[in-house]
Amino acid sequence: MSEAQGPLSRRRLFGIAGAGAAVAGVGAAAGVFGSKTLGTSDQPVEQAAAASVPFRGPHQAGIVTPAQDRMHFVAFDVTTTDRAELVEMLREWTTAAERMTTGQEAVPNGAVGGSEHAPPADTGEALDLPASALTLTIGFGPSLFDKRFGLAKLRPPALIDLPHFRADELDPARSGGDLCVQACANDPQVAVHAIRNLARIGFGKVAVRWSQLGFGRTSSTSRSQSTPRNLFGFKDGTNNLKAEDTADLSQHMWVQPGDGPEWMTGGSYMVTRRIRMHIETWDRAPLAEQQAIIGRAKGSGAPLGQVDEFDPIDLHVRGEGGIPLIAEDAHVRLAAAESLRGVKILRRGYNFTDGSDGVGHLDAGLFFVAFNRDSRTHFVPMQKALADNDAMMEYVQHTGSAHFAVPRGLGKGEYWGQTLFG
Amino acid sequence: MSEAQGPLSRRRLFGIAGAGAAVAGVGAAAGVFGSKTLGTSDQPVEQAAAASVPFRGPHQAGIVTPAQDRMHFVAFDVTTTDRAELVEMLREWTTAAERMTTGQEAVPNGAVGGSEHAPPADTGEALDLPASALTLTIGFGPSLFDKRFGLAKLRPPALIDLPHFRADELDPARSGGDLCVQACANDPQVAVHAIRNLARIGFGKVAVRWSQLGFGRTSSTSRSQSTPRNLFGFKDGTNNLKAEDTADLSQHMWVQPGDGPEWMTGGSYMVTRRIRMHIETWDRAPLAEQQAIIGRAKGSGAPLGQVDEFDPIDLHVRGEGGIPLIAEDAHVRLAAAESLRGVKILRRGYNFTDGSDGVGHLDAGLFFVAFNRDSRTHFVPMQKALADNDAMMEYVQHTGSAHFAVPRGLGKGEYWGQTLFG
Repeated sequence: MSEAQGPLSRRRLFGIAGAGAAVAGVGAAAGVFGSKTLGTSDQPVEQAAAASVPFRGPHQAGIVTPAQDRMHFVAFDVTTTDRAELVEMLREWTTAAERMTTGQEAVPNGAVGGSEHAPPADTGEALDLPASALTLTIGFGPSLFDKRFGLAKLRPPALIDLPHFRADELDPARSGGDLCVQACANDPQVAVHAIRNLARIGFGKVAVRWSQLGFGRTSSTSRSQSTPRNLFGFKDGTNNLKAEDTADLSQHMWVQPGDGPEWMTGGSYMVTRRIRMHIETWDRAPLAEQQAIIGRAKGSGAPLGQVDEFDPIDLHVRGEGGIPLIAEDAHVRLAAAESLRGVKILRRGYNFTDGSDGVGHLDAGLFFVAFNRDSRTHFVPMQKALADNDAMMEYVQHTGSAHFAVPRGLGKGEYWGQTLFG
Repeated sequence: MSEAQGPLSRRRLFGIAGAGAAVAGVGAAAGVFGSKTLGTSDQPVEQAAAASVPFRGPHQAGIVTPAQDRMHFVAFDVTTTDRAELVEMLREWTTAAERMTTGQEAVPNGAVGGSEHAPPADTGEALDLPASALTLTIGFGPSLFDKRFGLAKLRPPALIDLPHFRADELDPARSGGDLCVQACANDPQVAVHAIRNLARIGFGKVAVRWSQLGFGRTSSTSRSQSTPRNLFGFKDGTNNLKAEDTADLSQHMWVQPGDGPEWMTGGSYMVTRRIRMHIETWDRAPLAEQQAIIGRAKGSGAPLGQVDEFDPIDLHVRGEGGIPLIAEDAHVRLAAAESLRGVKILRRGYNFTDGSDGVGHLDAGLFFVAFNRDSRTHFVPMQKALADNDAMMEYVQHTGSAHFAVPRGLGKGEYWGQTLFG
């Protein structure tokens, strides 16, 4: 876990921002990325914890970007019914978001440089902080495609209303949303500042529906990262899709030409699930039972029957009496591509704790965030298998759920949502 | 904002832990610190973000320790009525707490080294993480001194039930508590892990009453630190008592011999207030109004009428028409020692965000934590002045409150609460 290591030099800042602009320029020149198989060109670059991540490019940042340490996620209801006003807000958001990802204020000299007689255009709490690898990722929820904005015909078939899964106990106040913004950064104050300033720009047009702070990443999205641990104490995301798996990403995560409406080509579908973990009950389970439920050794993270964390999972190894070493109801078996007709997803979740539950326990768990090419063929069958059979279900409770269409990244001069509204 | 910079080398780890033990040894030899004026000997030592902070010493760590970047705070109700059982838990907590502050598991080989057939004695999510400057600070609330444990006569007169302040809207579910533990660290996962493992050890004896995650520090407690910003975008804690102010700390923060019951000598009284900030309303106030409310310039942090952040506040400077540059209802005027018969407190608060408020806004603010020698003479008059007159009150709402007696630090072999129970 490495974090901001001091102020970013202007030289380094502009060097990286310049590189980002160059990538965007190339993409725009190549016909806005639309005509080739997507996802083969954006290798991750390991970043200094305080550095900036390019905002523009073929795909939105914050998906295969090496997962930052902290997250603040927000879902908005759109409160205006005026399409032009919504589009104008998305343009303003884009400008502000791009600035903030370079460590600048939302608006030039916004915090203290304007008129004393006007409210500051930036709220100021990130004034002294570097970019901190901030990424801002926008998504559009199913409810946006109702009658208000004339978007019904553009709703992607893949952007389904997620089905009810067994044992779901979803709180509507933690679910859904017309729009979302995922802010990830190595300094949480930078992520919170970004969300807050977007909410401020959106005043009168959008209202915060729910938000979630994630204090620690539970996934690696690049082989340059070590595997973090979730609140069950296990390494999480060992077998996650990673930025380097470009062929798999094209097959399983990036929406390809012809998959659905053209405006989503190069994007991905994001599912969020707020998963309360009953850690107090978990902590009373014997080590062997915990390991059997997960299907991995707690210390090394190795699949049961193997030695090292990254050894391939072998679902067919049997122990004494012919009993499978990885149980029929083990998490890794049910979530394995082998059990799911080969489908894979990219996970990008965070540990959370939200105070107490009022009956003597911490309210803590995993804010699950995943990206896939089509939630009907990827997330839904995976989640159904887990909800129906996963031994872990005894220890978790899904309390929030949302689904968003996350378009491709922006070319030069483009704004968030342009492929949808433009 | 600097954070964990990689694994701590064993040599460095043991070097620092050794120094801590040496300090404790000296203190214990000098009659358990009780007979001299306290607070003059523990200068802060700037620590690497991942290093460990000595657990034992004349005062508890986590008070004048340079404020770490993140916090997890928990208040417990004691559910056992058996005094011996409570004391035994405090002994277990002490051992586990000391271990965790050195980056070790709560129990040796606790996460994966025990029997497979028993629940692991450490929950494991901090297995790969360094000490991260973790401090664990214990406090005892007024409600502990009821009839259950025979402590009524030992309740310090200073440990009052805090009075109702104007505009208080306290939620009982976010207030009070028999015991508290403040965990501060530069990696939030380390802080959450510590609280969770103490809660686990306390199962059946204590229950979580409330907990609060703080994502970013809003105070400096050492001149070695830069001043952070709160969610109003202002530098916070410029004029805070700092570890280097040893005379002031003795006068205003450390309980001195003769102040009350002997068991609190060398300790301090901690007040926590969960302060919801109406940031959306604040963000619509003009810069000049924001600065007038605070009494400082937003950019530099300089007091109005001065140039630099650390210039002394001059409450007597007047501008055009003889109007005071620092308004009569400005926050810095009302909180200034000059306005409060000279009293000062040490603040150690954190920014928080807890999702949304259900009506379109972020639920965000400041988790105020302060330490003082006597809350009757220090915190209460200060808070009364602010609650009655502070222009900032229009933008904040106190939603939680608690008060704890925080005893002195531990000598070698001592346990948390020994001066009270021993």
